[in-house]
Amino acid sequence: MIPTLTWTLEGVKFIDQTKLPLEESYVLATDYEQVADVIVAMVVRGAPAIGVSAAYGVALGALRSKAPTAREFAPEFEKICARLAGTRPTAVNLFWAIDRMKRLFEHLLSSDVSMPQVQEKFLAEAHAMYDEDIAACKAMGAFGGALLPQQGGVLTHCNAGALATCGYGTALGVIRSAVEQGKNIRVYADETRPFLQGARLTAWELMADGIATTVICDNMAASLMRAGRIQAVVVGADRIAANGDFANKIGTYNVAILAREHGIPFYVAAPWSTIDTATPSGDAIPIEERSAHEVTHHGGKQLTPHGVGICNPAFDVTPARYVTAIITERGVLRAPYAESLKEMELVAR
Amino acid sequence: MIPTLTWTLEGVKFIDQTKLPLEESYVLATDYEQVADVIVAMVVRGAPAIGVSAAYGVALGALRSKAPTAREFAPEFEKICARLAGTRPTAVNLFWAIDRMKRLFEHLLSSDVSMPQVQEKFLAEAHAMYDEDIAACKAMGAFGGALLPQQGGVLTHCNAGALATCGYGTALGVIRSAVEQGKNIRVYADETRPFLQGARLTAWELMADGIATTVICDNMAASLMRAGRIQAVVVGADRIAANGDFANKIGTYNVAILAREHGIPFYVAAPWSTIDTATPSGDAIPIEERSAHEVTHHGGKQLTPHGVGICNPAFDVTPARYVTAIITERGVLRAPYAESLKEMELVAR
Repeated sequence: MIPTLTWTLEGVKFIDQTKLPLEESYVLATDYEQVADVIVAMVVRGAPAIGVSAAYGVALGALRSKAPTAREFAPEFEKICARLAGTRPTAVNLFWAIDRMKRLFEHLLSSDVSMPQVQEKFLAEAHAMYDEDIAACKAMGAFGGALLPQQGGVLTHCNAGALATCGYGTALGVIRSAVEQGKNIRVYADETRPFLQGARLTAWELMADGIATTVICDNMAASLMRAGRIQAVVVGADRIAANGDFANKIGTYNVAILAREHGIPFYVAAPWSTIDTATPSGDAIPIEERSAHEVTHHGGKQLTPHGVGICNPAFDVTPARYVTAIITERGVLRAPYAESLKEMELVAR
Repeated sequence: MIPTLTWTLEGVKFIDQTKLPLEESYVLATDYEQVADVIVAMVVRGAPAIGVSAAYGVALGALRSKAPTAREFAPEFEKICARLAGTRPTAVNLFWAIDRMKRLFEHLLSSDVSMPQVQEKFLAEAHAMYDEDIAACKAMGAFGGALLPQQGGVLTHCNAGALATCGYGTALGVIRSAVEQGKNIRVYADETRPFLQGARLTAWELMADGIATTVICDNMAASLMRAGRIQAVVVGADRIAANGDFANKIGTYNVAILAREHGIPFYVAAPWSTIDTATPSGDAIPIEERSAHEVTHHGGKQLTPHGVGICNPAFDVTPARYVTAIITERGVLRAPYAESLKEMELVAR
């Protein structure tokens, strides 16, 4: 089991994803500020993992509070939620998790319970989200694993694995499940510049599980597709809009276009918490622009000439028309997504 | 003037392209073996620059020879040509340059001239190829500059610039010419993993010329295109087949697909020496696979977990159907390329 984030008596322990794969070290966040810092620094990343981390952050905020009752804790609670919500803008799971804690807190406020009760309920809710996340990954794996070919190459971009969730992974959960079903799969992992989640994290966790993995530079995907070495693409998502457009790690849109051009199915695997029906289409998804330093430097070494312009959007938006299917823990959705998403939402209620 | 390669009394001086942009250092090749090493190590790279480097390598081989006549030099000449031809397989300019020296040598052999005469003729031929290369770049610039928009973003991949030629550049020559014509252009330079020719070399030489340049990761191109920030793509080529398919730096095929998907014109700029009518289509172009180390390490630091599989093809093939026009020193060619290439070849004879 890969320890993406673990609740301990001292706080939340995170495997440091900025240091993998060559160094396996851990960061302990003992208060909500530290949880926020850890999210900003991408010690923990991946939409589902960020969501659950934020929930634990809220729980830690309550645990460290000196307020005697829920009502007196309320202003502090607002501050905690605002700080955590301000860490990263694109992954909707962050806001989903905070909203869930807010709904719980409203309920607790209505009877103005004591702080020990708030603390207990908050921690229980975070634990529940943690468990639900793993269960959702396993369900996605079961639904999605069946879609992958009996044999062949599967391309993935970024890391939508155990390290992006509380365990098992979304896109990599689908691949893990296919391998567990006896399918003979080689994973092609886009290295995923600039943060190299593919080269560092996807390669690390798949090798730990003994799954055949080849790292490629992001610009090699089209030639591998043309050579017939890729039979399917599976990626995760940071936010899926009501019409099926979705945001995911920068470069996902490139891969989607290349897959369609080569007639290769392109699957998105994400828990229901990634679906944001309040966002009508991809154009309304806010895209985080990160520091130029991530592009200009590597391992402390500068790559580019001084003063050159840099773009560093952390995500891009892929229109729904490129998506063969969306794999969720509730089942596999097909186009038209505006309808299938709405239907699945109603069924689940 | 960027000193990609310079003839000196001691041999050929190369700017070390593995060290740019932060270190401007030079490597002197005093014999043909050293020229071959410099090509293999990518101290000099770019199809036209490799071709002229090989010609100087042959000239150096003759200058260092102890043979008294052309006839006695013949076995050594074969060895020199074989060594230089064995450096890199994809760029046809290398073989074109060596063949040109071979034709010259056959002519010299027929009258069994003395070695000083061979040396003089070889050096004169290499100098002629150097001058022709710059003239070809200027002509491509004039033809191609007119195709670029009056204002907007132009994406390029890898480095098809002064550093890939004897000066001015092919794709970057087209951009330089457009800027000289008063066009208001911002260049988006794909960083071009794994060797980072875009981030390091294209950015360096365009900034030296005061041309507005933004470096992006290779996986950002599609989102910039979708955002309307790219009005044209111009790339170089390492080999153009008789049907217009062409090989160029890995990732070019990706960009070509993305450009067509967004309705953006995609131009290839290359001198006639890059056109290989003996190769019927792109499928017949040999693609160099380079060391995994280029992908797994950067600046001495390992990026990937130990033992993971790696792909590192240095080039890919873009089918002719993605190419809006091929810009050569003889003029601008349009599809169907099998015909336009043949026609232009006949006109030039």
